Amino acid sequence: MRALIYDGQLRLDDALPDPRIQGDQALLKIRRAGVCNTDLELIAGMYGFSGILGHEFVAEVAQGPSDLLGKRVVGEINVACTTCDFCEKGIPSQCRNRTTVGIIQHPGAFADYLALTTRNLYVVPDSVSDDQAVFVEPLAAALQITEAVHISPRDRVVVIGLGKLGMLAAQVLKLTGAEIFAVVRREKQAALLEKWGIKPAAVDDLEPQTAQIVVDCTGNASGFADSLQLVEPRGTIVLKSTYNGLPQADLTRAVVNEIRIVGSRCGPFDAALRVLKAGLVDVESLIESRYPFAEALQAVQQASEKGALKVLLDFD
Amino acid sequence: MRALIYDGQLRLDDALPDPRIQGDQALLKIRRAGVCNTDLELIAGMYGFSGILGHEFVAEVAQGPSDLLGKRVVGEINVACTTCDFCEKGIPSQCRNRTTVGIIQHPGAFADYLALTTRNLYVVPDSVSDDQAVFVEPLAAALQITEAVHISPRDRVVVIGLGKLGMLAAQVLKLTGAEIFAVVRREKQAALLEKWGIKPAAVDDLEPQTAQIVVDCTGNASGFADSLQLVEPRGTIVLKSTYNGLPQADLTRAVVNEIRIVGSRCGPFDAALRVLKAGLVDVESLIESRYPFAEALQAVQQASEKGALKVLLDFD
Repeated sequence: MRALIYDGQLRLDDALPDPRIQGDQALLKIRRAGVCNTDLELIAGMYGFSGILGHEFVAEVAQGPSDLLGKRVVGEINVACTTCDFCEKGIPSQCRNRTTVGIIQHPGAFADYLALTTRNLYVVPDSVSDDQAVFVEPLAAALQITEAVHISPRDRVVVIGLGKLGMLAAQVLKLTGAEIFAVVRREKQAALLEKWGIKPAAVDDLEPQTAQIVVDCTGNASGFADSLQLVEPRGTIVLKSTYNGLPQADLTRAVVNEIRIVGSRCGPFDAALRVLKAGLVDVESLIESRYPFAEALQAVQQASEKGALKVLLDFD
Repeated sequence: MRALIYDGQLRLDDALPDPRIQGDQALLKIRRAGVCNTDLELIAGMYGFSGILGHEFVAEVAQGPSDLLGKRVVGEINVACTTCDFCEKGIPSQCRNRTTVGIIQHPGAFADYLALTTRNLYVVPDSVSDDQAVFVEPLAAALQITEAVHISPRDRVVVIGLGKLGMLAAQVLKLTGAEIFAVVRREKQAALLEKWGIKPAAVDDLEPQTAQIVVDCTGNASGFADSLQLVEPRGTIVLKSTYNGLPQADLTRAVVNEIRIVGSRCGPFDAALRVLKAGLVDVESLIESRYPFAEALQAVQQASEKGALKVLLDFD
């Protein structure tokens, strides 16, 4: 099969053996996949990853239990051990022994086939298209914000960093009824936000220390500093992106203003599918471009351009 | 009157006019005061403070309402405006227009007299000694940990940084019934902790990522890094000390492990008095030494020595 591999360099291999399923795995034939910022970080060597990249996908079950055969599915990316304390607490995404599809010691979805445990599969309703389904993983991550933090419809909420994930986060936050401001510099993003009824703003136009919730999707030190400037005393900053290196952080301000800072990662796939089925968020507008898988290297190049939204890979 | 002043340099002035009370203030004759790390930071020029230092004290009401005259009192240090949104929400310690005794634009308690609003005064029960009462302010700050974060008796809790505040925090945390570990290097502190039934430990002796709660009283970047090492996924780090400068912080780890980081500052004086009256914490053992106020400069010198616990100033 074909696969996009990073092993110190990025390359498309078109003669890999197909994976064989083991235990409770199903064999998934990938239909469509999306490029995430995490992929770009892995390619930059940030986490020492080596192997087949990719963790946003929709696929068809090619081998596996009869009730799943032929079904379109998406797959939760954390493959849990089922026996550690976090699995027992019902938090498999924090399993102490997990592998993670295309991120930690598990082959990814930028390949014709992927073997994945059936525990992680969610059948995609017919009314949800492949283009929509490929957004289930990042949309679930956006929904994890409201899993981790109670957002009241009376709150003022600011989202900083309107990239691939931030644009989903802003839409999910709007569903709470809260007043949402999006700190955005790019025209394309601002126009989409306005279409969705979300106010684009510059940090300096927002009254300092008045937001109950700030969601930092920037992944950089200045985004975190802006978050501290905008959040009100006793307010909450949700950290939604990983950061490059060790950002300098004004923890004193967090102490004096009694701020809560909440790290947030993977979220609920079932909820993401419900939100897509109900048409509550617009993911199609986030598609920057699409490439046949044979052009995966160009697709990654395009995804890494500043301001790029979602780049899709088609496996037809 | 006499007062210890910092205005770029530290000096004892013994010919200041006594303060005059205004509005709802009472005139407090200071009986005893304690030196806090914040005082040392102000003297180091960290917050641009200029004026009379000191915010940990017990005093006698020399002028004021008849029901308070002659009473021994302690005083909440945040002087609130009573009208801003935080005052209206019942959180005067986060008043947007507050001054703070001996810290922000309000004269402090290292002086023979202090004028302070009666709203901030708490009468000290007869059974609580002056030595105990002078700990009300930092003990309240330690109790603010359990105000901000729910600690279950099933939790594993680690306190890092067993200085003046950390030694109070460890005792308060022990009252929850949780298993408490204290990361401590100094013999004196370790011996006291063992006397109180709290386990002294080195960071490397503690299993990584197993504490539900870590309380960082270090105020430095390595203490925060240790906290991130010890806290379990979805666990909570309470920031209890201000930090020098902008520490580098591994916010990526906070995201991946979905850690909550909670800043915590001033706490409930009434609860601190109840805890002292009930004899639930041992504050007398934390007294490093005491000086007559005339020797305040030497007292500050002593308080700034590494590992020093509470240095008291007597105003007899």
